[in-house]
Amino acid sequence: MRPVTQLLLEAREAITPALRDIVDGLPDTLRRVAGYHIGWWDAEGRPISGTGKAIRPALTLACARATGGTATPGVLDAAAAVELVHDFSLLHDDVMDNDTTRRHRPSAWSVFGVDQAILTGDMLLTAAIRRLCDTDLAPVLADAVLELGTGQCADLAFEDASEVSLAECLAMAEGKTGAILGTACELGARAAGATAQAASGYRTFGRQLGVAFQIVDDALSIWGDPLRTGKPIGNDLAARKKSLPVAAALLSDTAAGRELAQVFATTDEFDQTTTARAAELVEQAGGRTWAAAEVDRRIGSALRALADLGPTPDGGAELRAIAALVTNRDH
Amino acid sequence: MRPVTQLLLEAREAITPALRDIVDGLPDTLRRVAGYHIGWWDAEGRPISGTGKAIRPALTLACARATGGTATPGVLDAAAAVELVHDFSLLHDDVMDNDTTRRHRPSAWSVFGVDQAILTGDMLLTAAIRRLCDTDLAPVLADAVLELGTGQCADLAFEDASEVSLAECLAMAEGKTGAILGTACELGARAAGATAQAASGYRTFGRQLGVAFQIVDDALSIWGDPLRTGKPIGNDLAARKKSLPVAAALLSDTAAGRELAQVFATTDEFDQTTTARAAELVEQAGGRTWAAAEVDRRIGSALRALADLGPTPDGGAELRAIAALVTNRDH
Repeated sequence: MRPVTQLLLEAREAITPALRDIVDGLPDTLRRVAGYHIGWWDAEGRPISGTGKAIRPALTLACARATGGTATPGVLDAAAAVELVHDFSLLHDDVMDNDTTRRHRPSAWSVFGVDQAILTGDMLLTAAIRRLCDTDLAPVLADAVLELGTGQCADLAFEDASEVSLAECLAMAEGKTGAILGTACELGARAAGATAQAASGYRTFGRQLGVAFQIVDDALSIWGDPLRTGKPIGNDLAARKKSLPVAAALLSDTAAGRELAQVFATTDEFDQTTTARAAELVEQAGGRTWAAAEVDRRIGSALRALADLGPTPDGGAELRAIAALVTNRDH
Repeated sequence: MRPVTQLLLEAREAITPALRDIVDGLPDTLRRVAGYHIGWWDAEGRPISGTGKAIRPALTLACARATGGTATPGVLDAAAAVELVHDFSLLHDDVMDNDTTRRHRPSAWSVFGVDQAILTGDMLLTAAIRRLCDTDLAPVLADAVLELGTGQCADLAFEDASEVSLAECLAMAEGKTGAILGTACELGARAAGATAQAASGYRTFGRQLGVAFQIVDDALSIWGDPLRTGKPIGNDLAARKKSLPVAAALLSDTAAGRELAQVFATTDEFDQTTTARAAELVEQAGGRTWAAAEVDRRIGSALRALADLGPTPDGGAELRAIAALVTNRDH
């Protein structure tokens, strides 16, 4: 099998014609915002290299292969649509979370303004669902968007909530990341002609993988290398986000967990020292260990679901490689 | 025939179960924002009376009747979906236009914050298209949303543009309002089983009516009674919007038109006196007369398109009554 980085690159290239087709259909102003956000050009429209990770379309294509299918136009459309929904959600989330950095660059709203970011997001969302409207896949994608929004709603609410249970946090992660990764997998299987039962199995694989993905994301935002992640360290901590390792630490009933709660209860803005101390406390309270164990559990269920599906050798190997990448990534 | 106000009320009531069903499916926080925006309750969730005009669903229902159909669940779903897309666009437009008043009340973002307004809009948009995903109507609605976004994009761009032609302004109005009214009509006809040709005729009727609607809207925002419109007078002028009467005045090659251009070229914020003077100049430059004549032309084409369709007597009378309401409304 090709190295997994190769797989992701291939997925990115495979969906580019469909993405271009959709983005080129936007009015000039929004086209520029969309291409900047996707990573095709800089703020002035000059071509650049380096785009997102393309894990979602890679999952769609690998699931199609795992069910014995190939990268038909229908499969590619599904993969492109899933990636566009992801792009839409990042555009709007960055506005809502006031995040000024995305993929190592200023976020779209901080370059083009909030209005353009909102409108471009609306268009990408609509175009993504529209792309699948002539198949029976559109409602699956739309349902994923609704679940994504429910997860984002919980995420916003948790910032103000004093106590959030681990179950609520995991449900949020399942909504925010599990839904769309699950749908990426389900759409790949369905577009390749899998039975409803098989498609549902691939969906389970993707959902479990998605929760693991989110936990790794949360951990990277606390302990990751900003040079690799492309996001300033401690953003989530400074925003007092109840990310999963934080929630685990706060609920740990340890001295470090109680101190963390006190730090979070202050109303001052976090400086670098406070952010570093908070990261330390999350680790001392067991948040990092819990996160690693939960990632293992989720990846374990994902791989069991996959094994039960009896995927083709190639497709199965690709999906296992993507799962390993999600666990071990540093960005 | 029932009075047209009765028609609108009936349309509103007829789609309420579908709207409720969708809004009740949202997470609590977003449900509260959506119901406030629609006009079901106040900011604290206490029931209130008085909602939007429901012109779009009334058009859907009347077009279904005009083609000999009835208000089947499919027709009602289409009408509800169109209204939800309208609600989505108002939610996001108010954020983008920084409008603090909507339907006589503080706009949703000014009560619940920008984040909640963005997210609720995303959910209503997705739920609207989702509602039609099991029919062949979803792509029609999605295309209308894309056209709506293109119109909104032009609208935002015109604020900064020094010169905008009347053709560009009319194209913008066709995108912002024509597309969705045209789609409201087309969906009603299609959901009632009309032929593609008939559906396209109803679409033309709705598009022409939509442009007339937008011109009347623009005029009301300059010369309307704020007590009736529910929006502060002169908002559009103060934002230097190239609304249609303004564009006509600026392009009029009259002394008043040139003075208006000078007033618009200043960088100071408009006070009440400047706004009142600008309104006067638009009128003196012929912007008001042009608007009235263009409304008549558009309504004329709409009614001719309708006559060519040979609608049922009841449905035709309803559509003509709605067209008359659009022309003569004061809010």
